[in-house]
Amino acid sequence: MNKAFLAASAALALALPASAQESGKPAIPTPPQIVAAAPKSDWVAIAPEDLLVMTLAPDAEGNPRTVVIQLIPAPFSQGWVHNIRLFARAKWYDNISVNRVQDNYVTQWGDPNYDNPEATGKPKPLPEGLKVMTEDEYSTRFRDRRGSMFHEPGPLLPKDPYSDFGTFRRGFPVAGSYSVESGDGASKYLRYWPTHCYGMVGVGRNYSPDTGSGAELYTVIGHAPRHLDRNIALVGRVIEGMEHLSSLPRGKGELGFYAKDEAARRTPILTVRVASDLPEASASSSEAVGQQTRPAFEYLSTESDTFAAYAEAIVNRRDPFFIAPAGGADICNIKVPVRRVAS
Amino acid sequence: MNKAFLAASAALALALPASAQESGKPAIPTPPQIVAAAPKSDWVAIAPEDLLVMTLAPDAEGNPRTVVIQLIPAPFSQGWVHNIRLFARAKWYDNISVNRVQDNYVTQWGDPNYDNPEATGKPKPLPEGLKVMTEDEYSTRFRDRRGSMFHEPGPLLPKDPYSDFGTFRRGFPVAGSYSVESGDGASKYLRYWPTHCYGMVGVGRNYSPDTGSGAELYTVIGHAPRHLDRNIALVGRVIEGMEHLSSLPRGKGELGFYAKDEAARRTPILTVRVASDLPEASASSSEAVGQQTRPAFEYLSTESDTFAAYAEAIVNRRDPFFIAPAGGADICNIKVPVRRVAS
Repeated sequence: MNKAFLAASAALALALPASAQESGKPAIPTPPQIVAAAPKSDWVAIAPEDLLVMTLAPDAEGNPRTVVIQLIPAPFSQGWVHNIRLFARAKWYDNISVNRVQDNYVTQWGDPNYDNPEATGKPKPLPEGLKVMTEDEYSTRFRDRRGSMFHEPGPLLPKDPYSDFGTFRRGFPVAGSYSVESGDGASKYLRYWPTHCYGMVGVGRNYSPDTGSGAELYTVIGHAPRHLDRNIALVGRVIEGMEHLSSLPRGKGELGFYAKDEAARRTPILTVRVASDLPEASASSSEAVGQQTRPAFEYLSTESDTFAAYAEAIVNRRDPFFIAPAGGADICNIKVPVRRVAS
Repeated sequence: MNKAFLAASAALALALPASAQESGKPAIPTPPQIVAAAPKSDWVAIAPEDLLVMTLAPDAEGNPRTVVIQLIPAPFSQGWVHNIRLFARAKWYDNISVNRVQDNYVTQWGDPNYDNPEATGKPKPLPEGLKVMTEDEYSTRFRDRRGSMFHEPGPLLPKDPYSDFGTFRRGFPVAGSYSVESGDGASKYLRYWPTHCYGMVGVGRNYSPDTGSGAELYTVIGHAPRHLDRNIALVGRVIEGMEHLSSLPRGKGELGFYAKDEAARRTPILTVRVASDLPEASASSSEAVGQQTRPAFEYLSTESDTFAAYAEAIVNRRDPFFIAPAGGADICNIKVPVRRVAS
């Protein structure tokens, strides 16, 4: 027993496959190995217009903190995504702060002077040109016909407690429900909506029918609060630097807001930029030296055979560590692979 | 739009029900209101023998950090729980540390000198009297007969991706699967096992058939890694002070272990005590002054009508904030209410 107990390697085993030699079992590709073997053509470049670069103040030790958010593509949440680019380009997000960190729930950022008992100044006026969305836009309706998103390939997760099934579209986890809607007799429709997984970014809002503008954003830092699906707009997800938002001190005020005696804990957000507005790394020195440059990322196509094999391997874990494969998976445990590439 | 956008109250609305007046909808009890109205008889005292008090070194600002863990009761994981009490009483856990914090996964603590490239000393010898468990004990088998746990009341969650259904027993979330097992013809059996929800505490182990001793423990700090169910022993959950484990800096080494240049980030664990070994708060001054005293907690009986109503209200959210109730819930989003009481 003593000899067999290897704390650090046991911990390793918690997440990484051992080599086949070590376990004596045949080598079966693990989920990360399947991703590593994906052909280049299965990776999709994320448009620079869909990347937000959020720079927080350095941490207590002076380390820089940058968070990259991938905005969700069409047909999901486009009005809110439009607004978020508009806020970023108006520099409206510059010098706001993280005002709320609630354990196992969300980290939220926005204007600390808006409707806040801790306000020390006036709230910023909102920029012109914001779109107003309806609640109907929390999900997207598709008709059952050839060529629609309804018929695209993708792993199906039939046992999703929050929908008829979970799947993936355009690089994002989505849930769907069948419906027969009025106005078209017995035509079959489907509604898809993005799901509140760890790291997803959403839009704070007031009571219905308000749907939020995008001035106040949050990200999920705990177990997926899926009951918020179709009740709040999701606009993207954190693809780099999540630890800068998830490991912040929890607020002691109601709902995790920083209380009166801890306002100094609010993390300043220095800038938020759309990546396409940043100079390319290869730009001339006068433009790029000492400046933030444009990052580049790719995601594994969720409509690819590689992604289907990756999801299947997660559902039926055959890594040597596992003695009882689940035979199923929660949609939030099939994380879409994303990688940084040379820009 | 500008007028309707209330950042802080929108954030409030994210989690707390508004008053009926505010929303114009009739007042329907919210999950917290259902819990608040529970009769005293629905609350179950947690045995002091089932409470671990773990004292971390104070944080950078000198604030004390205490974590309270509820050990899982019979019939789940009793051999491991036996070992954990034994480790605590041998003071084996004193002066170990948090060695690993992996984002959206686990915080893990144990002997930093065990099988660790960063070791600066010898590993501690393990205490005598540890039990060795089999893999069969990751779940518990019940025969389908009157009076068995099989027939106890509790909300059933039929769409659990990791089992035939989710439910709650003895204050803990558990998943179950039906089976017809050999040796007893067509008799119906059921297996239950605890689930890897946020805050649950498990036992690090090496490769099968090792099942871990309890020297190395972890808690879930992200989305539930349910694929670990029935593959690792769960021994309890954090019921107070979770934020002291979830907000620690993530390790930069492989799997979130603190790397060579950040060994100073390991949080020291000063002591771990079984609550029944601590003096009661009401004990004579000579015993209790300046000493840690015994805390007391209760949980809402998961077999009570109140818990069933609470779970139902979570499945079908009718709070004014919600426009689209899910009609279902993930087992990890029905958190068993726990409260501290005067000891």
